[in-house]
Amino acid sequence: MSGEAPFRHVALIGLGLIASSMAHAIRARWPEVRITGYARSEATRNQTREIGFCDAVMDSAAEAVAGADLVVLAVPIGAMGELAAEIAPHLAPDAVLTDVGSVKQAVIDAVGPHVPTHVHFVPGHPLAGTEHSGPRAGFASLFQNRWWLLTPEEGVDPAAIERLQALIAGMGAKTDQMEAGHHDLVLAVTSHAPHLIAYTMVGVADHLSRVTESEVIQYSAAGFRDFTRIAASDPTMWRDVFLTNREATLDILGRFTEELFVLQRAIRMGDGKHLHDYFTRTRAIRRGIIEAGQDTAAPDFGRAAKQDG
Amino acid sequence: MSGEAPFRHVALIGLGLIASSMAHAIRARWPEVRITGYARSEATRNQTREIGFCDAVMDSAAEAVAGADLVVLAVPIGAMGELAAEIAPHLAPDAVLTDVGSVKQAVIDAVGPHVPTHVHFVPGHPLAGTEHSGPRAGFASLFQNRWWLLTPEEGVDPAAIERLQALIAGMGAKTDQMEAGHHDLVLAVTSHAPHLIAYTMVGVADHLSRVTESEVIQYSAAGFRDFTRIAASDPTMWRDVFLTNREATLDILGRFTEELFVLQRAIRMGDGKHLHDYFTRTRAIRRGIIEAGQDTAAPDFGRAAKQDG
Repeated sequence: MSGEAPFRHVALIGLGLIASSMAHAIRARWPEVRITGYARSEATRNQTREIGFCDAVMDSAAEAVAGADLVVLAVPIGAMGELAAEIAPHLAPDAVLTDVGSVKQAVIDAVGPHVPTHVHFVPGHPLAGTEHSGPRAGFASLFQNRWWLLTPEEGVDPAAIERLQALIAGMGAKTDQMEAGHHDLVLAVTSHAPHLIAYTMVGVADHLSRVTESEVIQYSAAGFRDFTRIAASDPTMWRDVFLTNREATLDILGRFTEELFVLQRAIRMGDGKHLHDYFTRTRAIRRGIIEAGQDTAAPDFGRAAKQDG
Repeated sequence: MSGEAPFRHVALIGLGLIASSMAHAIRARWPEVRITGYARSEATRNQTREIGFCDAVMDSAAEAVAGADLVVLAVPIGAMGELAAEIAPHLAPDAVLTDVGSVKQAVIDAVGPHVPTHVHFVPGHPLAGTEHSGPRAGFASLFQNRWWLLTPEEGVDPAAIERLQALIAGMGAKTDQMEAGHHDLVLAVTSHAPHLIAYTMVGVADHLSRVTESEVIQYSAAGFRDFTRIAASDPTMWRDVFLTNREATLDILGRFTEELFVLQRAIRMGDGKHLHDYFTRTRAIRRGIIEAGQDTAAPDFGRAAKQDG
């Protein structure tokens, strides 16, 4: 894929997993793009300077965004409003402003009022991540084959959206646009409620005194392991996700507990047919995901068996 | 690792994922071991003959176990009692009888009464599996670095247990012994309840009409994907697991819903501190699992990013 970069200068505000991965991915594709960065923590700024994925790490957000034609807000959702107010006077004319927050309506509500008329605000959300945090966690292929959702409000310049789409495509991801409220509901189902459920299961295991922690850990290959991976996600990010996507999350959790009680009752009453029918139905959804290319059917996810003791 | 095989002739009753993987693993380690097999379905017997991981596939369980010094019951737990009654008269003197069921007390209750005094019954459970079923699903490395739990009752000949342990070690797994009831509780925490929860989450997504099925599937890399993989497990096996490990599973599910309501309430009330503290605590359990060697910390589980569109 040839062609010049859609942006000259990208400013990353927040330098965690997502921002650092964006930097690595952009540099791999378009080494000529200038990348500046800022993070609130001095330690993070210094680590980023050591790693070197920014051309310059500034000591203020205002300095980092000066002259940038794309500004990426990659901080916890709860910090976005204040940040937007701080940088607004320093955004270049015609700059594109985006974010990578996991909830969209709350970001629009917090950031929107501060966006100058000469700036194009295109909120976004890359559906990618690992359990690790911080500038050292980033890598260039994080977004390969992943979805990056955009939720611009009506009236935003389509050319600005296209430039952002081109950048995202250059990082290997696929884009889709949708209304912010719809995004938040879909993510409540596919991500937010599952995360809370995973956190809860790990918490239950943690409390159980009759089952030792070492057993829970040792024998966790049996299904629990997947939950713990989800439950190791960044606590600050997830606190903000649940607080800002509250209604949709509570909706899904309510449905979940209703569903769980039906199955629990079937178990208590020994209704094997009910269980078998239910489990058969859920297998079909799994097949759909493999077909959609969002996972692999290779045994053990294609991992080679580990050889250590 | 040199040394002769701990068994001369292994009979596999049931020819699904676990049995076929055992055959592949045993053959890789000790090609001289005779392996006979039987499955209730003629189609399965024929598929197994095609694949060729048994020296002979018989048309009855009795024929398959004749002369075997190890007999493995690899059928759904609900079928084990009847099977045990059927093969009991045909078991060789001094044969070791084992199973691979995910629940131990129910297997002991169903099978135990049929075991002749000259046969050594050592119930077992390999903590390994994939979402696939059937004879074609098996592969030799399934048990590499996994735990295989044994729950022999008191008085079983230690030499018989050791022979089985040697076979398991030859297939790459680690063994541990415990009391059957304790096994069932530990597995309720690490496997059974998590599976039911995963099934439930997938079921909720399935019902939701405001969110199209394609979106749930498309955007499922965000956490939901892990649930669907768990929820694609064999429906028959899991029906029997829940029906036979009922008390322990209901215990854990009850604790789970109590815990979930606490978090749900924190979300409704905007208690960010509670959420942050809880999520921070669960991260520690994840670290413990990586250290115990039961998973990898490599980004994206060490999977190379997929390149398809």
